[in-house]
Amino acid sequence: MEKTEFTLLNKIQTPDDLRKLKVDELPQVCDELRRDIIEEVAVNPGHLASSLGVAEITVALHYVYNTPEDRIVWDVGHQAYGHKILTGRKDRFCTNRKLGGIKPFPSPEESEYDTFACGHASNSVSAALGMAVAAELEGKHNRHVVAVIGDGALSGGLAFEGLNNVSSSPNNLLIILNDNNMSIDRSVGGMKQYLLNLSTNETYNAIKFKTARWFNRHGMLNDDRKKGLIRLTNAMKSAISHQQNIFDGMNIQYFGPFDGHNVKELVRILSQLKNMTGPKLLHLHTKKGHGYAPAEKDVTVWHAPGKFNPDTGERLVDNDPTKPQKYQDVFGHTLLELAKQNPKIVGVTPAMPSGCSMNIMMKEMPERTFDVGIAEGHAVTFSGGMAKDGLLPFCNIYSAFAQRAFDNIIHDVALLNLNVVFCFDRSGLVGEDGATHHGAFDLAALRPIPNLTISSPLDEHELRRLMYTAQLPNKGPFVIRYPRGGGELQDWRCPLEEIKVGTGRKLHDGDDIAVLSIGPIGNNVTRAIEQLSIINCQLSIAHYDMRFLKPIDESILEEVGKKFKKVITVENGVRQGGLGSAVLEWMNDHGYAPKVTRLGLPDNFVEHGTVKELQHIVGIDEEGIKKAILEA
Amino acid sequence: MEKTEFTLLNKIQTPDDLRKLKVDELPQVCDELRRDIIEEVAVNPGHLASSLGVAEITVALHYVYNTPEDRIVWDVGHQAYGHKILTGRKDRFCTNRKLGGIKPFPSPEESEYDTFACGHASNSVSAALGMAVAAELEGKHNRHVVAVIGDGALSGGLAFEGLNNVSSSPNNLLIILNDNNMSIDRSVGGMKQYLLNLSTNETYNAIKFKTARWFNRHGMLNDDRKKGLIRLTNAMKSAISHQQNIFDGMNIQYFGPFDGHNVKELVRILSQLKNMTGPKLLHLHTKKGHGYAPAEKDVTVWHAPGKFNPDTGERLVDNDPTKPQKYQDVFGHTLLELAKQNPKIVGVTPAMPSGCSMNIMMKEMPERTFDVGIAEGHAVTFSGGMAKDGLLPFCNIYSAFAQRAFDNIIHDVALLNLNVVFCFDRSGLVGEDGATHHGAFDLAALRPIPNLTISSPLDEHELRRLMYTAQLPNKGPFVIRYPRGGGELQDWRCPLEEIKVGTGRKLHDGDDIAVLSIGPIGNNVTRAIEQLSIINCQLSIAHYDMRFLKPIDESILEEVGKKFKKVITVENGVRQGGLGSAVLEWMNDHGYAPKVTRLGLPDNFVEHGTVKELQHIVGIDEEGIKKAILEA
Repeated sequence: MEKTEFTLLNKIQTPDDLRKLKVDELPQVCDELRRDIIEEVAVNPGHLASSLGVAEITVALHYVYNTPEDRIVWDVGHQAYGHKILTGRKDRFCTNRKLGGIKPFPSPEESEYDTFACGHASNSVSAALGMAVAAELEGKHNRHVVAVIGDGALSGGLAFEGLNNVSSSPNNLLIILNDNNMSIDRSVGGMKQYLLNLSTNETYNAIKFKTARWFNRHGMLNDDRKKGLIRLTNAMKSAISHQQNIFDGMNIQYFGPFDGHNVKELVRILSQLKNMTGPKLLHLHTKKGHGYAPAEKDVTVWHAPGKFNPDTGERLVDNDPTKPQKYQDVFGHTLLELAKQNPKIVGVTPAMPSGCSMNIMMKEMPERTFDVGIAEGHAVTFSGGMAKDGLLPFCNIYSAFAQRAFDNIIHDVALLNLNVVFCFDRSGLVGEDGATHHGAFDLAALRPIPNLTISSPLDEHELRRLMYTAQLPNKGPFVIRYPRGGGELQDWRCPLEEIKVGTGRKLHDGDDIAVLSIGPIGNNVTRAIEQLSIINCQLSIAHYDMRFLKPIDESILEEVGKKFKKVITVENGVRQGGLGSAVLEWMNDHGYAPKVTRLGLPDNFVEHGTVKELQHIVGIDEEGIKKAILEA
Repeated sequence: MEKTEFTLLNKIQTPDDLRKLKVDELPQVCDELRRDIIEEVAVNPGHLASSLGVAEITVALHYVYNTPEDRIVWDVGHQAYGHKILTGRKDRFCTNRKLGGIKPFPSPEESEYDTFACGHASNSVSAALGMAVAAELEGKHNRHVVAVIGDGALSGGLAFEGLNNVSSSPNNLLIILNDNNMSIDRSVGGMKQYLLNLSTNETYNAIKFKTARWFNRHGMLNDDRKKGLIRLTNAMKSAISHQQNIFDGMNIQYFGPFDGHNVKELVRILSQLKNMTGPKLLHLHTKKGHGYAPAEKDVTVWHAPGKFNPDTGERLVDNDPTKPQKYQDVFGHTLLELAKQNPKIVGVTPAMPSGCSMNIMMKEMPERTFDVGIAEGHAVTFSGGMAKDGLLPFCNIYSAFAQRAFDNIIHDVALLNLNVVFCFDRSGLVGEDGATHHGAFDLAALRPIPNLTISSPLDEHELRRLMYTAQLPNKGPFVIRYPRGGGELQDWRCPLEEIKVGTGRKLHDGDDIAVLSIGPIGNNVTRAIEQLSIINCQLSIAHYDMRFLKPIDESILEEVGKKFKKVITVENGVRQGGLGSAVLEWMNDHGYAPKVTRLGLPDNFVEHGTVKELQHIVGIDEEGIKKAILEA
């Protein structure tokens, strides 16, 4: 791809500039927007295919609606790159996801065009409904509110809760259902099938839209007459299509499906829907990755492809064989290995089979792996049901998304003391995905829950051993948390051995200060101690890998309590309520009073940057740990 | 009502005995079961109307299915009293909800007939699907699994997530939709409307059922032929009913609606559905409170009526005017008072308008109060959307159910630092509703979340002041937690005054020991100190009402740190991670090392009993506090 001339895009500093263009120019804007995204993401990795798929929707929305006075609420912000470029962030888009650069997902803090948080899927309908209801209550009857939700996000129960409430209060919300049959992996579930059925009834849907438009044009959409329209369309349904649509049935007027890649047609449709009163749903078909052949071919890989050559579509994958593999790969291979030995094991993932590498087991044992779609609560309760009747589910959820299953963990698993293994992937700081994606709260939030075992491996071998241990008989609910990305070891393979639950280990002996860590962040401690010894620091530093937050290793704590006046705790999670607090509680309860320095995440949302940069900022990298040791 | 002769019921020790009866005897069993429930609940208060409504369903299920080998999963356990009586707990039913007695909700720990936890609504489909999938995978092809879900619970996103996954894996799950148009209050939302529409199409549904039955009788329901049936019924839909049913559309065969109070008909239908393969949904109409005239008339009051005269239906309400009113009433009246002054205030409740007393505001300001149905996540995110555009939502959720909105609180409110007031009702120990309903985890789980203010009032006046404070401009997300039931004061009315955020107060001065408490549990501390002084205890005890967990009052902590070597913290919540831990963290961070005794809930699920009994068991009643003081 030669460097593109952005003749139209360069004129657009804000949507006001876009709205000055002729409709006939919009296809070119879409092309340029798409090319801009491709060229930028090729060198500055991020999410690609989703934003390509909504280029036309994005342009049409900002063209028809009076943003930012009108509200566009994106569901899952990785589709919003085009939106960012059109709303004053074109020049800074090269800083996307970088430390101090623009944020990975829309954020009201960053731009008035960003209306809500959208790092976790399925929240757009509820949030937008709130805005639409607020507009009504505050007399802002000319404000339009639009939610843009993908069919992948529609499997989340929150989206359904939102839809269920849309017609309860007066509002003019428009929900755009961006139906591309995908979340990151392929969409799953009955709703997908239902949408497919809907799409087969285009004749009826087209007539219905035309009728509604006619009424609208003739000013016949005030409240009383609208009821007439609804009755009419209901009658039409019987006459024409034989279709009782769930959305219409919930008193949300359904329109579609239409082609989501025909920008001029979209402008026409949106202009017509704009002034129809009452809640509406517009069903659009799009193709994730549309307009870029490599992405269209393999949308899962091109969801977030890393660096690539925009001309050839060749991905610049880092194949350095000396680099450690990702924790995700170790999880995936080990799960399959264990499942081959233990017929009780099943795998459950909410829409992340490739992200968490459960696809390795899924390929060989499709009947024993369950991708339940974006539905973290169900993933846990479904696991609970299977465990209750004798299976042993490994339920893998990204830590930040597992927050959605907090009650399910308590009520549907821990209370019943069921044998479910929770693998919380992407725990701790995740890097470029930023504030919404850090797995910051798991240790602190889970620690008070009775019956839970909570662990985190120091490295890949320990991950394998913990996974092996967790699937032994009657271990009860067992949490294993591990971070995103590359591990520590050249060769992750090792024999599968049991670790005694509730035991840590001493990694380094010492007499002056004790450092207690949990999880892979302990490797920073190891390196910090090495670096201090190199610079001839005279401190004698003990280092314990606690391995379990709960039950915590009391023999280590007793040894530390007796021997040390100065203790440092290190965890890749919030500083309040986690390992540091557990150590303080134990010391106090048992009559010890060492000075404990708790290293971890501070009491503010941590933004985006590389993991290394963020660890440095919060003080849990080698430098931060060395500093804490020297100050102690 | 004269004391009933339970001629049939007395023969039933287990469902095996029930299954020996003739079908013609079942109506009498239902009558006796209903009368037994009424007579027991009249003297030993509990949930009434729900169980009356499912008497026939309960009898038919245990009659047709081979329980406990077959699995019945109840959704919301307060409908399961009949189930308990039929499954070996008739004689102990008089101990229902009492300390050491049978549990308020089904529990696998108590009975093999109880298959899962069902204190929180909407989890039955997911759990039962897990069991149905487990049966398939483990080769138990003769095991039947039935989920019984009310239409009120269907508004919960978890139920939708379950339904969306039902057809993804081979299973023979039967979902019974108990459609009575109610949760505790009347059901709300679009789905309710949709179910109503479904019900108008009985001709088609009846024919469909007969066709499926015919196929079944002729052994034509093996897998290949089933596909034929599905095609056939799809064709029939077009021909007969013009109805594309959401359940059928999601590949769950829909049957109904039928009368849920005709037990003989139910037995016939269930017997026929029993051996149909594939997932099925049976839609039954019932009336909550059916068969007891007073309950039928006002189902909300008779959901849990307290003691009453079973003959007259007269409720034995405790109208003692000298008794303090409930915190709930104070909340309800104060909310209305504030809403009259501040036009930005709106109220949001997930299906608990009468339980939390938001119905007081709802009655006067229906357009500013939102009952969103059982949908805690949506309640929070919807509040976030309204707050983002300038409104000030008071979002009231029972603490234990708010666990379901943990991520929404983090991602959709705290991250955006929105002005949402969270009123967490029924926090701490709730008494007879037991393990699933205690609001045990809120303080500990919420404390690490940035931007949150977390408070709890000592008494009704403080509740009013905190509510007033929370609605002042730019307070950000503001948590007020308070317990279930009666307050402390004769007259809860008082002027509305601001409390400085992050300030506690000294209630009692002293020199030897400092007691720090948060919330109404502080009144136990006050009484304990009084009682100690009466018995001439020579200890000089200071008592601080911290009022805010976050931001915590550092000037109090500094005063305490400087002055006291012995500190006791008291909280009505888990001991790990809450107030006690916060105090320990602060003391350690600031170079103080008092011995801190942390009183609160232990690391196990606390069962049911009166609040007083449970407070005594966990050691946060006056006795427990006195003991801790004397031991310190």
